[in-house]
Amino acid sequence: MRLCIMGAGRIGSAVADLADDYGHTVTALADSKSAVIDEDGIDVDSAFAEKRDEGRIGEDALEEATEALYDVLIEVTPTTPGNAEPAYSHVRTALERDCHVVLGNKGPVAERYQDVRALERESAGELRFEATVGGAMPVISTITDLEPSRVTNVRGVFNGLANFILSRMAAEGLGYEHVLAEARDLGIGEADSDFDIEGTDTALTCSIIANVLSRTDHEFRLGDADIEGIKHIPGSALDLAKEDGQTIRLIGDVTSENIRVGPRLVPSNGPLAVQGTKTIVQIETETTGRINVSGGGTTGHEIATAILTDINRIGE
Amino acid sequence: MRLCIMGAGRIGSAVADLADDYGHTVTALADSKSAVIDEDGIDVDSAFAEKRDEGRIGEDALEEATEALYDVLIEVTPTTPGNAEPAYSHVRTALERDCHVVLGNKGPVAERYQDVRALERESAGELRFEATVGGAMPVISTITDLEPSRVTNVRGVFNGLANFILSRMAAEGLGYEHVLAEARDLGIGEADSDFDIEGTDTALTCSIIANVLSRTDHEFRLGDADIEGIKHIPGSALDLAKEDGQTIRLIGDVTSENIRVGPRLVPSNGPLAVQGTKTIVQIETETTGRINVSGGGTTGHEIATAILTDINRIGE
Repeated sequence: MRLCIMGAGRIGSAVADLADDYGHTVTALADSKSAVIDEDGIDVDSAFAEKRDEGRIGEDALEEATEALYDVLIEVTPTTPGNAEPAYSHVRTALERDCHVVLGNKGPVAERYQDVRALERESAGELRFEATVGGAMPVISTITDLEPSRVTNVRGVFNGLANFILSRMAAEGLGYEHVLAEARDLGIGEADSDFDIEGTDTALTCSIIANVLSRTDHEFRLGDADIEGIKHIPGSALDLAKEDGQTIRLIGDVTSENIRVGPRLVPSNGPLAVQGTKTIVQIETETTGRINVSGGGTTGHEIATAILTDINRIGE
Repeated sequence: MRLCIMGAGRIGSAVADLADDYGHTVTALADSKSAVIDEDGIDVDSAFAEKRDEGRIGEDALEEATEALYDVLIEVTPTTPGNAEPAYSHVRTALERDCHVVLGNKGPVAERYQDVRALERESAGELRFEATVGGAMPVISTITDLEPSRVTNVRGVFNGLANFILSRMAAEGLGYEHVLAEARDLGIGEADSDFDIEGTDTALTCSIIANVLSRTDHEFRLGDADIEGIKHIPGSALDLAKEDGQTIRLIGDVTSENIRVGPRLVPSNGPLAVQGTKTIVQIETETTGRINVSGGGTTGHEIATAILTDINRIGE
């Protein structure tokens, strides 16, 4: 497949790095300012070298990338809550041109689900977004296989930074600010850590799941979620929980009608009490009970693998 | 879809029970002696009432079921190590008639993988066997999506009865024979418990995974597995493990070249130390690390849901 990669951060660069190994050719690649386009395949290494040296990935205009020759557009610009732009426009252009779209950016399916599904219905291209929920963990595909209408509940720990903070605070008795600084030193989480800690990232993930589970035309958006972050949890609350064989995790909980995101008490030795930056998703139906999926982290190469795995699903 | 269900035990009866809810019609249903066939749909309840009262499911000859009118043959007779018969013949008849096949019986893919794949290549029908590995857990589909050639290792706890015995022995300090009797009282495991305890069932599951991972024409069979059961593990070994923060689990470990089944020391608080009849599978690739899938038990309705979910995947 010929790939157009919109976004040249840690995920975009990892997709570009792995594409050749999966038999794909990158024909367009864009950062936030510019693009590099070549129908015969871009020299990915020199494009990223140019980005390091010149501060931009190429000499073509950004707008030209989505109009270039490609089979799949990969949207991995940073997720911006609100109107999902510019990701939404990239997705629209690709689908209107009958190209496939694979999302890493959560926005289009978290906040404009009905719009992008309508575009997909009119297109010969497919829209895939497994990588937006739990990275390399098979969540959307498992829900789809089980049939969304049979799934009664999906819940889990979806954010690695928030979980790192809570599990370090509980294990070491350290304060919130100290652990957050430690996470920054380790390069965990995005530049805007509030996005993770206040529950926004988890709520966007839950909105995507709710859109998949929804049995009506209602479009879930960030505003539909009842959200509480973890910023104001004192170490003493974690100590109290511990005395009772429990701990606190930032849990996202989704049904076809509701989204709740907030800190919850969970048993210390139960499946939801994952450690460090690990994440877990529990999918429940009436006849299977809970299926747990965990692991598959959130580094650039892990998310990139999820995106390349989604490309494999095109045409299924 | 019109279904032919070969096998009327706990899984066959659960599939028959749930079929209508999934929009399917059962047109043929067979136990080990007889069959009931009706192109317009069988009255499932009265067929099972007849089985209870008369000791056979219907008045038609067993052989006629696979020749009846159906779209999907569901093979859920008991797995018999060796030549995978009579399941293999049922699968062959269905594929030669261009019908789809969904397996619950492990035999055809654990012991005659190349043969059934060759039949599938010549058929307009598809062969699906997700339910043979970990029931409702998405294992084969996850391996397929990640690409089998990229999966470096699959390992896990695959057998509920063996795990029940080991986890009860460790938790309560009870002896092997006592816990086995307890499991029988609770109806856990098949009639032939040696099949579970000696590692045969786990090895068959691992053989299926190895066949999917294999990069050569080599056909894995039960005889390729290095198997050690749990029958001779003394309670003292579990006590010693516990002192060291560990416990013992019956682990199946598969690469594209090897199958090993046997009791292994695992950390007590690690993902492999699942409790009771629970099972877990870890799938590893170079770029995603380990993805864990757990839960989704092995009751009749859980396996039946896995089979009906596999029917949903036909044509993907």
